[in-house]
Amino acid sequence: MDAITPPSRTARAEAFARQSTLTKKTGALGRLEELSVWMAGVQGVCPPAPFARPAVVIFAGDHGVARTPGTSAYPPEVTAQMVMNFVTGGAAANVLARLAGATVRVVDVSVDANPGYMDALDAEVASRRVRRSSGSIDREDAMTSAECAAAIRLGRDLADEEIGRGADVLIAGDMGIGNTTPAAVLVGILTAGAAEDVTGRGTGIDDAALARKTVIVAAAMARGAAHAGDPTSLLTTVGSPDIAAMTGFLVQASVRSVPVVLDGIVSCAAALVAAALAPEASPWWVAGHLSTEPAAARALDALHLDPVLDLGLRLGEGTGALLALPVLAAAGATLAEMATFDSAGVSDKAADA
Amino acid sequence: MDAITPPSRTARAEAFARQSTLTKKTGALGRLEELSVWMAGVQGVCPPAPFARPAVVIFAGDHGVARTPGTSAYPPEVTAQMVMNFVTGGAAANVLARLAGATVRVVDVSVDANPGYMDALDAEVASRRVRRSSGSIDREDAMTSAECAAAIRLGRDLADEEIGRGADVLIAGDMGIGNTTPAAVLVGILTAGAAEDVTGRGTGIDDAALARKTVIVAAAMARGAAHAGDPTSLLTTVGSPDIAAMTGFLVQASVRSVPVVLDGIVSCAAALVAAALAPEASPWWVAGHLSTEPAAARALDALHLDPVLDLGLRLGEGTGALLALPVLAAAGATLAEMATFDSAGVSDKAADA
Repeated sequence: MDAITPPSRTARAEAFARQSTLTKKTGALGRLEELSVWMAGVQGVCPPAPFARPAVVIFAGDHGVARTPGTSAYPPEVTAQMVMNFVTGGAAANVLARLAGATVRVVDVSVDANPGYMDALDAEVASRRVRRSSGSIDREDAMTSAECAAAIRLGRDLADEEIGRGADVLIAGDMGIGNTTPAAVLVGILTAGAAEDVTGRGTGIDDAALARKTVIVAAAMARGAAHAGDPTSLLTTVGSPDIAAMTGFLVQASVRSVPVVLDGIVSCAAALVAAALAPEASPWWVAGHLSTEPAAARALDALHLDPVLDLGLRLGEGTGALLALPVLAAAGATLAEMATFDSAGVSDKAADA
Repeated sequence: MDAITPPSRTARAEAFARQSTLTKKTGALGRLEELSVWMAGVQGVCPPAPFARPAVVIFAGDHGVARTPGTSAYPPEVTAQMVMNFVTGGAAANVLARLAGATVRVVDVSVDANPGYMDALDAEVASRRVRRSSGSIDREDAMTSAECAAAIRLGRDLADEEIGRGADVLIAGDMGIGNTTPAAVLVGILTAGAAEDVTGRGTGIDDAALARKTVIVAAAMARGAAHAGDPTSLLTTVGSPDIAAMTGFLVQASVRSVPVVLDGIVSCAAALVAAALAPEASPWWVAGHLSTEPAAARALDALHLDPVLDLGLRLGEGTGALLALPVLAAAGATLAEMATFDSAGVSDKAADA
């Protein structure tokens, strides 16, 4: 992996100091203050500018485990249908991206659909596919090690392409029926949790399906445990091509010194693997929201990241990260635009005690 | 009080039904779904439109209790200085309002400053003052009952004026050194809490000042307890002119069928009194955020309102409510603009179990 430079300590220190000059008690803006310091650091300048070009890349893939009856709320063909929905602009991520001024790009990393299914809409979407679906990770590898390397490379290339198009903050979204299963497995192994601690209801399964899914997660965790110390082997064994691509994307953003807003459980699982690959990467990331999936909180704890929002979302697609962008804008703007005690003629001396 | 019409049941039902047709599992957008139903109800139409004219009114007032040494982080003269800061656009609320496309108006309800202090900037700001400061509520009434009636009337007039100017969602912000003390007292009495349960650090006092403030809150709660069943007497005895005006503002918004985003502890305390005055008012309100002040959570629990954001803010001014506006915009836009399963050709049948 290439070297990763940390965010600017100087800009962070300037932002921290500037906060105490603004017309409010230090700390009164809560997390906005901490986020303003992060923004200054990742931009290398204080005060930071608004993010002008947020870019969402949605990593679409299918998962062999979703072919096991009764473990997912939707059938696997929904993944390909949703890829089309992103391209035609009708998904939640499209709507929220329009509000936030963000671009949305969907990439078929490992969708289980016939070649050519996207040709009539946008052939480029499916032109980068690494493989069709993944192995059923409870009993076989997700992919070959060559496919894993190609997926990580794809993610890195996508980060480079988006940055080349002018993106100044990146979001990795996900779409894939069954994708919370490998995400839970990866988080379970990397945080030394039990299958019960990391298995959630995904898009919305019932108790019986949750029990079946927990058995699958436990079986996959048993298969993957020996690879805990080798992130690429772990992805090959019990991950998936789409999560491997996301992992490469997150690492490359940090290599390129471009900030990232993390999304839900799939994004957080990829971030955990990316931090294992490149321990210097995580200061470039902020956690957009807390997914209802139990593994999300575990992953963020392990990454020492505190989510900005907690709105009960469990959709993925980058939606939670997109919703956090206005909070970042507010953090940067208050730091940049508020009057200081001096400029406003407001007393900053404490009352006599 | 005038009659209050409930938000539209028909529009709420339509919004609830429409959520289940959109290309995501019902519930996957978490609180956005519930907020979209609220928006449809208060607008009386499904899907709801974006709020076009949010208006913040900041109720500024000083408080006799803040003259007690060592109970506030700042001296009382800061209130008047901050009123000027709002008028010149340098406060946090101004910055966040610019981002949200909201107007900001500050009204001196009971600031402890010489008459004419605002003449050079904007004489109208101080033209509506009900009285100068308030009585020290640990040992005397906050104001006379005539002043309380005038303050409530002022708040109702301000709501009417903002609605007359085209506001389609209202925010009651606060500014006043010491204002968390009457707010804590009102919440303590109306939720039957102890002084220790409702007294917080305000803008940021230390342990010794917190202990002194708790004694004052307990004394005021003892004075006010007999008035728990009469909201206007309660405001007169242990409230303040600015909170009384806010109370009138919140009631009148509901009378006029205009929605409100509540802010921090002072706004929540006024909402609790307003709900006591007008029990039908609260369906028109949504809680923008959870202040760090302990009384805020108690007040919202009593109002059965769940805050949208929890960002550790303790600034007031309407800042927490302003930060919630993009979440409301997202809630409305996803309901209005997402594709349906039918229109997008996405399968909505559950996988075989």
